Amino acid sequence: MKSYTKRDFPVDNIRRFIEPGPIVLVSSAYKGEHNIMTMGWHMVMEFSPSLIGCYIWDQNHSFDMIRKSKECVINIPTVDIATTVVKIGNCSGRDVDKFAEFKLTPQKAQKVKAPLIKECYANLECKLIDSSLIKKYSLFVFEVVKAHAPVHPKYPKTIHYHGEGYFMVAGRTLNLRKFFKPEMLI
Amino acid sequence: MKSYTKRDFPVDNIRRFIEPGPIVLVSSAYKGEHNIMTMGWHMVMEFSPSLIGCYIWDQNHSFDMIRKSKECVINIPTVDIATTVVKIGNCSGRDVDKFAEFKLTPQKAQKVKAPLIKECYANLECKLIDSSLIKKYSLFVFEVVKAHAPVHPKYPKTIHYHGEGYFMVAGRTLNLRKFFKPEMLI
Repeated sequence: MKSYTKRDFPVDNIRRFIEPGPIVLVSSAYKGEHNIMTMGWHMVMEFSPSLIGCYIWDQNHSFDMIRKSKECVINIPTVDIATTVVKIGNCSGRDVDKFAEFKLTPQKAQKVKAPLIKECYANLECKLIDSSLIKKYSLFVFEVVKAHAPVHPKYPKTIHYHGEGYFMVAGRTLNLRKFFKPEMLI
Repeated sequence: MKSYTKRDFPVDNIRRFIEPGPIVLVSSAYKGEHNIMTMGWHMVMEFSPSLIGCYIWDQNHSFDMIRKSKECVINIPTVDIATTVVKIGNCSGRDVDKFAEFKLTPQKAQKVKAPLIKECYANLECKLIDSSLIKKYSLFVFEVVKAHAPVHPKYPKTIHYHGEGYFMVAGRTLNLRKFFKPEMLI
């Protein structure tokens, strides 16, 4: 499978990966077990500190693992592993070791116990900083505490869910810098 | 400018437009004034009822208009009006009537006072159903109470923000239905 040479990436800038709205893979670890889930409902909530809000359904096997470990890694997959992303979302960690089943490589993270997924374009190490909205909205508020991303390509071919089994693949890049006020170019 | 022939669209299915993560235009009305803002931080929070969470910065002119009127319309623009979307995000409703300035057509909504933007692909009429997270997170939780969208094209050329003045334009559509369990095809 494709792999990317990554460097440390400034956490305040990771909105670049989340704001366009890709499907992501969330990896977690708890009491010697690890798991992966596919997630489509998330948003940037702040860039410094770097906050991401995520909806995690309470029926997912990852729900309790993340709630109890208070950590996860948000991994950004690209179109080359699209079928794997779908298959991960269509089985449960209760039945399957997803790293083994889908031949994905767990890598040691620096600030959390959850593993990075080597085959993903970028990896965001996250700590749960607010669990008060989990009960009402299944909303986990994470702070990205460490990020890993390659220098090239700058704009990856992410996949974005339309529902009903259809995805949009990231298309061309449009430079509209000249229409921005300088102070808005963040 | 391009326009779309729209029909009523089931509100439980509007995640099709929001989940892929496009930049949206939020229109509002309060005390005889109307405004438009460009917004990139949002997420699906539930599909029935149809809930969308949105980050609205308290320095935006729209912030108080939406907080006080408890309503807005989330409009989905496409790449043909990309420069307009950026310009709307780089000026303030304090100084400019954005509908007039950018030659956009306000249309009467059915369930809210905020206007639809005719030139956008889809229009989601929203009511603020939870204001308790505004102070801490600038997070508005809206329920979509009425939606308007065309039958064609089914997958619009939305734009997705990468930061620094660059956007991703929605690319090709990928059909991965065969890898889904039937009950997951929503």
